[in-house]
This record gives sequence, structure tokens and C-alpha cells, in this order.
Amino acid sequence: MAKILRIAVLSAFLASSAVAIEASAAPPLESLAVTASSLGQKALDDPAAFAFVESLTTEIGQRLAGTEAHKRAVAWAEVRLRQAGFENVHSEPFTFPAWIRGAESAEVVGPVPQHLAITALGGSVATDANGIEAEIALFRSYADLLAAPPGSLAGKIAVVTQRMVRAQDGSGYGAANPIRRSGPSEAAKRGAVAYLLRSLGTDSHRLPHTGALNYENGTPRIPAAALAIPDAEQLERLTAVGPVRIRLLLTPMAHENAPSWNVVGEIKGADRPDEIVLIGGHLDSWDLGTGATDDGAGMAITFGAARLIAGLPQHPSRTIRVVLFGAEEMDFSGAAYAKAHEGEANKIVIAGEADFGARTVYSVQLPPGAAGSDFGRTLGRIIAPLGANIDRRPALGSGEDIRELQAGGVPVASLHQDGLDYFDIHHTADDTLDKIDPKQLDQAVAIWSAFTYLAAASDVDFRSLAATAK
Amino acid sequence: MAKILRIAVLSAFLASSAVAIEASAAPPLESLAVTASSLGQKALDDPAAFAFVESLTTEIGQRLAGTEAHKRAVAWAEVRLRQAGFENVHSEPFTFPAWIRGAESAEVVGPVPQHLAITALGGSVATDANGIEAEIALFRSYADLLAAPPGSLAGKIAVVTQRMVRAQDGSGYGAANPIRRSGPSEAAKRGAVAYLLRSLGTDSHRLPHTGALNYENGTPRIPAAALAIPDAEQLERLTAVGPVRIRLLLTPMAHENAPSWNVVGEIKGADRPDEIVLIGGHLDSWDLGTGATDDGAGMAITFGAARLIAGLPQHPSRTIRVVLFGAEEMDFSGAAYAKAHEGEANKIVIAGEADFGARTVYSVQLPPGAAGSDFGRTLGRIIAPLGANIDRRPALGSGEDIRELQAGGVPVASLHQDGLDYFDIHHTADDTLDKIDPKQLDQAVAIWSAFTYLAAASDVDFRSLAATAK
Repeated sequence: MAKILRIAVLSAFLASSAVAIEASAAPPLESLAVTASSLGQKALDDPAAFAFVESLTTEIGQRLAGTEAHKRAVAWAEVRLRQAGFENVHSEPFTFPAWIRGAESAEVVGPVPQHLAITALGGSVATDANGIEAEIALFRSYADLLAAPPGSLAGKIAVVTQRMVRAQDGSGYGAANPIRRSGPSEAAKRGAVAYLLRSLGTDSHRLPHTGALNYENGTPRIPAAALAIPDAEQLERLTAVGPVRIRLLLTPMAHENAPSWNVVGEIKGADRPDEIVLIGGHLDSWDLGTGATDDGAGMAITFGAARLIAGLPQHPSRTIRVVLFGAEEMDFSGAAYAKAHEGEANKIVIAGEADFGARTVYSVQLPPGAAGSDFGRTLGRIIAPLGANIDRRPALGSGEDIRELQAGGVPVASLHQDGLDYFDIHHTADDTLDKIDPKQLDQAVAIWSAFTYLAAASDVDFRSLAATAK
Repeated sequence: MAKILRIAVLSAFLASSAVAIEASAAPPLESLAVTASSLGQKALDDPAAFAFVESLTTEIGQRLAGTEAHKRAVAWAEVRLRQAGFENVHSEPFTFPAWIRGAESAEVVGPVPQHLAITALGGSVATDANGIEAEIALFRSYADLLAAPPGSLAGKIAVVTQRMVRAQDGSGYGAANPIRRSGPSEAAKRGAVAYLLRSLGTDSHRLPHTGALNYENGTPRIPAAALAIPDAEQLERLTAVGPVRIRLLLTPMAHENAPSWNVVGEIKGADRPDEIVLIGGHLDSWDLGTGATDDGAGMAITFGAARLIAGLPQHPSRTIRVVLFGAEEMDFSGAAYAKAHEGEANKIVIAGEADFGARTVYSVQLPPGAAGSDFGRTLGRIIAPLGANIDRRPALGSGEDIRELQAGGVPVASLHQDGLDYFDIHHTADDTLDKIDPKQLDQAVAIWSAFTYLAAASDVDFRSLAATAK
């Protein structure tokens, strides 16, 4: 694949470049595009990104924020960034409420005894030491749970088995997210003593998908866990046999004010070093797998892109800052970063997080007004032969860690990766290195390197493009 | 699919039948073929087979021989057979050495601590109550282990990470089987204190594949477990980082002389009831999943086929006996059955076990000399439009439970099901109902019903065909 792409990139670029030179007097973007395009080609054969995630998942493995393993990952990342030629490598500490998984098990007690594959949701409180045993109230849709009157679930374990939709853009996850995030408190409001949901996933394996919940203030906190998808379907069938009783045991622990770190490395800008192109992924992972695709891959992609740029004979004008966020899964590192860099937000030209797996980028969304600008058109020509387009609709957001920056006025880009099978393994024990296709990962590095270089080497001003677009 | 097949079956059969009637004076097989063909068509729309495996996996679940659940499954099966109109329904007791899984866990202690997904092999002895901790000796092929000199593994945990080949006919499993069956004793002979193998499977999930081992007499019995495939690959990578130490805990228990039962139901032959066409599957399952494809599906297919025949206005000449074997996974029920029916072996016209999943039958192998006989040609015409062929090579065997009967001279048939993805879930927690496509299951019922009816309603004599073929 790499060879075919390389030839396509070259010829496509030369053709478009020639046209552009004829049409106008070689605008700066056109000359930068030659470098951006060759970075993209180089990325297709660069083993650095895969080596990054291979080393991380092998030598560290899981790295849930708040664990010793995450601490080791922070040290590993600093070494890795320095070795790759990044400058100003450091870790910025913050504290957050950590959550550590304990024992977890669930059994159907009746009508017929059976084991259930479950995993606690991040942030869940523990059950009693001996577990909870109760009859279930099963809802095939979340709307049905919300329609249940207060008190109607008194003493019961609420179970929601709504299916999540498979979609390339991950929209099924967004739509289903409240079932996991808000379901526990909604069930508690109606009297439930515990909450189970069909995993937010698209697979059919006995490997449940964890993920964070958000308890509502003023509502009792009840233990909550995700069922593997075959187990959710089994409960649907069992309810037809007779009343279903479940014994649930969860013994997680919470630790207020646990330490974490956002790890930073930079490629200092040659001309305007105080203007920043901020890219990155998150270093923390869930604890069930080794966090290969979530988010070893995202870090590897942005690291790989920045590293290629660092290897150029001359640094781009602006600084490229790679941030490896330290508590994304618990929703804390983005806020910590934004708060620590409040005074600097207006210097961040654009920000983007890669946090959607290891597959190819198929479209790039830019801030409002940028898709149709010289910047957007030039980037579009570079990435088209690599298999990606500029989506003319503006980026609505980027990764979770960028949300607070965006709220503070920082323009964001969203590089969409193919997520059709992302939720087969997302937040499960199956998130391991073997799920990554190095060739697809390299294509993502190619798109990110072209985008990042063009943003850092040009004088594109996304804020004024957005203002003009209004 | 069902409709298209039905039309195809009818037209193909009418065409061939017409030719046959012209060519010879309506041989009995040709008239039977009309019924066999219509049974096949009926099977394509018959919900009974799927309902059988749905009920079994929901209302019983796992049913490891020797457990209470298996006892419940025996009672369930008797009721089910009676309700479906089978006669002489009974269970034939035998005893066998049962094995019950206990706690099981494995952790990489160094060079970096990590959890490993493992499961004990059936028959494995336990570790010490606190587990075993030792350095590993990793072999990427089983031949490498066999080449290791005696004593060379003293004090070590031997690990074999040889890959199993994916093949439609399951030949990859047969080839790799000694790694699981004999590996523990081969490792022990060389001094190993425990044994781990890469699961005999073709998936990439964190769900290890269990299965029975066979300790060699006179060799120390060491604990043995299977690694999930991603975990075996992780160990390969970790050995490059530094010496790998693993802590392994297994607490299974063995029970000599545990009771089990082969459940039997018959459709009494109308003319020659003492001549028997014996078909079936095995009722016991491994304990990790719900035994949907292994072997809920095989039982459902042969049950479904026999049930359709039982519903005919007239029973076939010979008796159809369905046997649901009671300890296949531990290799005991076939021998128990053969021993109990030693005097009757010469009455068994043919025997066949369905024990290869829930997908379509693509080829049928008959005893020597039968493929080219009137029987083989007629069956071939009936099953071709259903998507299956007669394989001209004779059947080498059928399921594990038929092996002893075959050794005693009973002719066997082998109805090959598509096994390309069978070993993705075989012997894992993933063996659950959602893996079964009812339409594919029904096609298998169609082929089995045509084969079974033709064998029971005709006077085909496979023994004399085989003698002539010699």
C-alpha cells in the first residue's frame, strides 16, 4: 500500500502545484506544501509510531491514572520524547479523584444459576463486602428506564440492555453515552440498589466495556457495572423464563487528590516560538487491556507526526507542542491543562487530540471558515492521495482533553479516523497491540504530519478565518 | 435464502428424478428421495433446532460433565426428547474422572508487572495454594520444546506460543492438538514446573481456550493452562525486554468415579427396528461459555433432523437413535457407550456425530464405497441444491464419541460443517448463543435430515459396499 500511495501523492501534488504556480505567484502555502507532502510520504514507511505504542504496551501495559503503572508511563514518556529530539520535555502535575478497580463478579442466582461477565464502571461505589443480591428490572431501552416512576425500582437492580449503533464516525457512542454516564443516578432516583447496562460496544464477546459514570449530586450513589454484550442478551432471554435474581460484587476504591501529570514536549518554533500548535493524545488508559488503541495509538500518531517534523532541516515558524494528557478517562486532564495554561490560550493557534483508535484518517474538519481557505484547499490536495478529505463542515470539537481549551476560545481541528470497529474493543481487555495495523497507523501519522506542519509553518490565523466566516 | 433454496431443491430434484425414472424402474431410493428432499426443504424453515439450543443455553447454560448443571441438562434433554415424540427415551449411566475448575490467575511479575488472561486445561492438577512463581522458558514452536534436552527446563514454566492454522476443515486444530494434549508431560520430562501454551484458537481476544490434556503415566503431573492469544504474543515481546517471571495460580479439583449419562431417544423403525442409524451430539460442554456451538448446535442439528423424520406420516424402516453423549470433552462418553452396546454394534447401520459448530454443511463423507453407490448419488442430488456435496473420499471418522464404535466395525459418516471461524470461539467463554446464525443451522439440519432419512428408510448396507470397494 505504501508504495502505491507514495506515487499517487507525488503525481497528485506535482499536478496541483503546477496549476497553482500558474494561477498565482507561488503563495507561501504552496511552497510549504512540498514539505508537508513529503512528510506524509515519509510517514507511510516510518516505524516510529508503531514502535512507540509497541514499547508502551509491552513495557508498561495498562496505565490507569492513579496507579504505579501510570507513574512509570510518565517517566517512560519523558525519556521517549527526549530521545526523539523534543525540547522542553517536562510533566505538569495536577490532582484528581482516582478510582481503582477491585474484585468484581456477578452471578444469576435464579431462575437458573449462571455466571455473568461484568466490569465495574469507572467511579462506581463498591457493593457491600458480601455483594448485593436482588431481583432485576430489565429495560430494553434507556427511555423505558427514564419513563419508570420514582420508587418503582425500589430494592431492585436496574438493567438497561439498549443496543449501541455501529457507525464509522462513532456517533453511536455519543448517542448511547448517557446510558452509562447518567443511568446509575437515574436508576437510583427510582429506588434501584444497583445498575447494570449492556456494554457500550459493538462486539459480541464476553469482554465487558468499562468507562466512567457521573453520579448526580444529591442522588444516592449505587454500584454500577457493564455487562458483556452476550450476557445482556442472555438476561433478556432469562427474563422470559422467570424473575431473575442477580448477586453483584464490586470492591473498587476511590482516592481523592491522587497525583497525575500531563507530559509535554515541544519543537520550538524557528520564527514565532510563542505561537503554539498543540497536538497530542492521552497517556492514561483503562486498566483492563493495555490501552493500545485507547490511547496508545493516538499518542503514537501525534508523536510520530511531530517527530518527523523535528527531523526536518529547519523547524517550522511556530512551536509544535505535544501533550500526553494524564487522566482523560476520568475526564480531568483537559480541565487541568486548560486551567494551568489559561493565560496562554490566545497563543494556541490550533489544538487537536487523536483519541479514536489506530485506523486511517478519512476526513479532516477544521475550524469555521478554514475548509474553503487557502489553508484548507492546500491541505486537501496533500491528503487526498493519502485517502482523506477535508470535510467542509467545521470541527465541532476534538478529543475530551481539548474541550476546555476550546471553551476558552482555542480553535480546534478534528481528524476523523475510521471507527467502524473501534467500539468492538474500546475500554475492554481486548484493547491490545495486536489490534493495530501498522500500515493504517502510518496513514494517520501521514495526515497528522501534513496538517501539523502546514499549521505550524504557515501564518494561517484560524481565529480571523472564523471571524470572517461569521 | 430459504425460498431460493426451496425452489432450487424442487426443480433439481424433479429433473433428476424424472431422468432416473426413465432410466430404471423406479428404484426404491428414488421414491425415498422425494421424502428426503422435502424433509430438507422443511428443515430450512423449521425453528425447532434453534429453539433447542436457545432453550438449553438459556435455561441450563454451561454443563460441564460432573456438575449439577450437567445433571439438570440430562433431565432437560429427556423432557425435550419426549415432548418431540421420541420413543424409548432414557439415560444410560456411566462413571468417569470429573474435573472441576477452581480459581485461576496469572501475572507477569517481571520485567514489568502485568495481568495475563489464562484458563486451566481440563484435567490439570492444581498449583500450590499460593501459586507457583518461576521464570519462563518460551518456545515459539512445539518442536523447539521437544528438542530441549532433559533437565533443561528445571524449575521453569515452559511456554509454547506456536500458532494454530485457520482452516475450513479444522485441520489446524488436529495438527496443533499435541501441543495441548502432550505438551504438559513433555515439559515435565524436561524439568518444567508448569506449562502454558498459546490457546489452540484462531481469534485475537483475551478469552483463552480450555480443553483437555493427557498426562503421560510415570511423568510428574504439572499444572497447565492456556494463554489468550494476545497474551501469548505479549510474552513473546516481553522476553525481548528481559527474563520473564510469572506467578500462576490454579485450584481445580478432580473427582474419580463421577456420574454421567448418555441420553437416548429413538424413532422406532417401521420394518426393521433392530437396525439402527445412530446420530447425535454431546450434551456436556466446557464451563466457560454456554456451549452453544460446542455442542448445543450439534445436538440441535441431529435432534432437529430426527424430529422432522418423526413427524412423517410413516416411520422409516430402520430405527433412528439419537444419542446425546455425556462426557465428550473429557473423552469418556464414546467409550462408555461403545462398551455398553458392544453386542449391538453389528446392528448399527451407520453412525455420525455432529460436533463441529453451527455453520452450514459443505460436504458429506460416507463409508468406503458408498459415495459412488446409488445411495451416494441419490444423496448427492438431494443435497447439491442445499449447498453441499458428496466428498468422494471416504469418511475417516466422525465425532470423538463415535471413535470407539468405529473401532468396533461400525460404518461412519462425516458431515463437514464450515469451520473457518469455529476455533475463534471453541472452548472459550465466547461460545454463546449469539454466535449461531439460525439460517446456517437450519441448512445443517436439512443435510442431516436428508442423510438420516435416506439411510434409515433404505436398505443400504454400508458394510457390504465397503467390502466390495476393497
